[in-house]
Amino acid sequence: MQALVLRDGQLADHADWPAPAPGPDEALIRVSLAGICSTDLELVKGYAGGFNGILGHEFVGVVEQVGSRSPAEWLGRRVVGSINLGCGRCPVCLSDGPDLCPIRTTLCIHSRDGAFAYLMFLPVANLFPVPDIVSDEEAVFTEPLAAAVRIREQVHVRPAQRAAVVGPGRLGLLVAQVLALAGGDVVLLGRRPESLEMPRSLGLTVGLVDEFADNHFDLVIETTGNDAGFAHSLRLVRPRGTLVLKSTFHGNADINLTKLVVGEVNVVGSRCGPFGPALRLLETSARAAGNLTTGAGVQVRPLVEAEYALRDGLAAFDHAARPGTRKVLLRPN
Amino acid sequence: MQALVLRDGQLADHADWPAPAPGPDEALIRVSLAGICSTDLELVKGYAGGFNGILGHEFVGVVEQVGSRSPAEWLGRRVVGSINLGCGRCPVCLSDGPDLCPIRTTLCIHSRDGAFAYLMFLPVANLFPVPDIVSDEEAVFTEPLAAAVRIREQVHVRPAQRAAVVGPGRLGLLVAQVLALAGGDVVLLGRRPESLEMPRSLGLTVGLVDEFADNHFDLVIETTGNDAGFAHSLRLVRPRGTLVLKSTFHGNADINLTKLVVGEVNVVGSRCGPFGPALRLLETSARAAGNLTTGAGVQVRPLVEAEYALRDGLAAFDHAARPGTRKVLLRPN
Repeated sequence: MQALVLRDGQLADHADWPAPAPGPDEALIRVSLAGICSTDLELVKGYAGGFNGILGHEFVGVVEQVGSRSPAEWLGRRVVGSINLGCGRCPVCLSDGPDLCPIRTTLCIHSRDGAFAYLMFLPVANLFPVPDIVSDEEAVFTEPLAAAVRIREQVHVRPAQRAAVVGPGRLGLLVAQVLALAGGDVVLLGRRPESLEMPRSLGLTVGLVDEFADNHFDLVIETTGNDAGFAHSLRLVRPRGTLVLKSTFHGNADINLTKLVVGEVNVVGSRCGPFGPALRLLETSARAAGNLTTGAGVQVRPLVEAEYALRDGLAAFDHAARPGTRKVLLRPN
Repeated sequence: MQALVLRDGQLADHADWPAPAPGPDEALIRVSLAGICSTDLELVKGYAGGFNGILGHEFVGVVEQVGSRSPAEWLGRRVVGSINLGCGRCPVCLSDGPDLCPIRTTLCIHSRDGAFAYLMFLPVANLFPVPDIVSDEEAVFTEPLAAAVRIREQVHVRPAQRAAVVGPGRLGLLVAQVLALAGGDVVLLGRRPESLEMPRSLGLTVGLVDEFADNHFDLVIETTGNDAGFAHSLRLVRPRGTLVLKSTFHGNADINLTKLVVGEVNVVGSRCGPFGPALRLLETSARAAGNLTTGAGVQVRPLVEAEYALRDGLAAFDHAARPGTRKVLLRPN
């Protein structure tokens, strides 16, 4: 089958990669659409100690086959899937679920082939059916939207507090929309006026990061993953405020931590999120489509910048790596 | 002027009540529309130690005159107003605002005339301009909607947790809609199937309170204000879960507190809320109108059951006091 495979740091396009066979608790899924995210780009640069295998963890597909111990009712269903597979027996799994299991495998990151292929497999326990009203182009955003929703699981987002999202990129656009729900007061901040045009067209309140005074916000979400973004975020959050690190930082950041300590800033790292709420949001937003604006749902389709056939995956990765690029999709079939 | 006045426990309709004159920091407001809430009904029954004066604290109106120390730009603006007036100098006011000031006055509850009149007055500091897209019929819900939003200020509402709202009345309908925002998993519970028809038509997930097992929910909001509602709420919340009392209980409730203590249930009393987020919700919901469903905004117009002219205020109160009645509005002019 067609697959986009990372091996020894080299990304290559294969037309004849062996198709997987699902185990007794697993489903074989025909991938309809997949999305390239920053983690995929970082993996190509060597993040996670050199992953070898098929890349991709944002996908929507159709169940084509189920293993011997799995319910047949999944056959033919349109699904998305959560990416962490825990052992299901350790104290972490039993109390907090699989996302932080110390011996977990993670799709396309730890020891698991990913979604940039014609076919993939996942345990049935990781699958979520996609509501009919949610299109493939929307459902493919379930995983990153869940990551944005994760902030609301970890941090008490008060409607009347002042919140800022630093970075108007792929992730920042989702995070700002999720924080604006339920009456939230949110500004999405960027460094260049051009980067704010599209967020403004979604109805988001936007601003230039330099225009805001120190300590202006109760809650700041850093989504850039770079030192400048972190420095701005730390500058903008008030003493005793909360700073959420939603991006993955690699290497050592060059950061002055004085304010963090003296100002008693609460720093929260944030990773994968719950699929159920993300799918509910996509469903209610799809129902309101047409008149939708920020604060009354999430708009994901405007985040799609380009779609490539899977066999043109290398060109898609080049496109996705350009600065300021939003979501690039891959269509396997 | 026309006014609906409570005096010595007797509600009376006056056609010639003296009009108020605003002080230097106050605005005179011509009331466009006002709503009767449960507190008004309780006041007539003698709650708050026998309030004497004009009733009503849910309103929308137009500023007709401002005092000598107030900005003229408020003149002619359509406004709603928050109902608590703090001293502005005590530690409680300075840290948490006026809502809990020990010497506060409260519209139509503590020493302040209310909104069931042709004209009313409020400090300019309490006013909020109403966005053009929000109609009077929607803006009149700002105060009760803010009370629903207040829960999100006090309690960390996690999108993936199981939440229940007990009581499908006026307040429960607003609370359930507010909790369903941002991907929330919420069931609105009632005792009779008929009481759930209208909530279901709003897109809310509904259920009969008897159908759910003990300890089923992480978060329960009690909105009925009666012993049975409280007992059900306490039964439904899981050990270490959160129980929010959104209704006003009067007198002693006949309640078994064992579970509350042994189960370490977190009980949170909840009162007035922030107008800014409530107005943002009404604005984004109005923009999405037409396709709106629960989870993508709040629908308040379906909550209106009847509208009366202010001069028919006594009949309006009789109507509002009938069990199961939703919002009854009064139109002064």
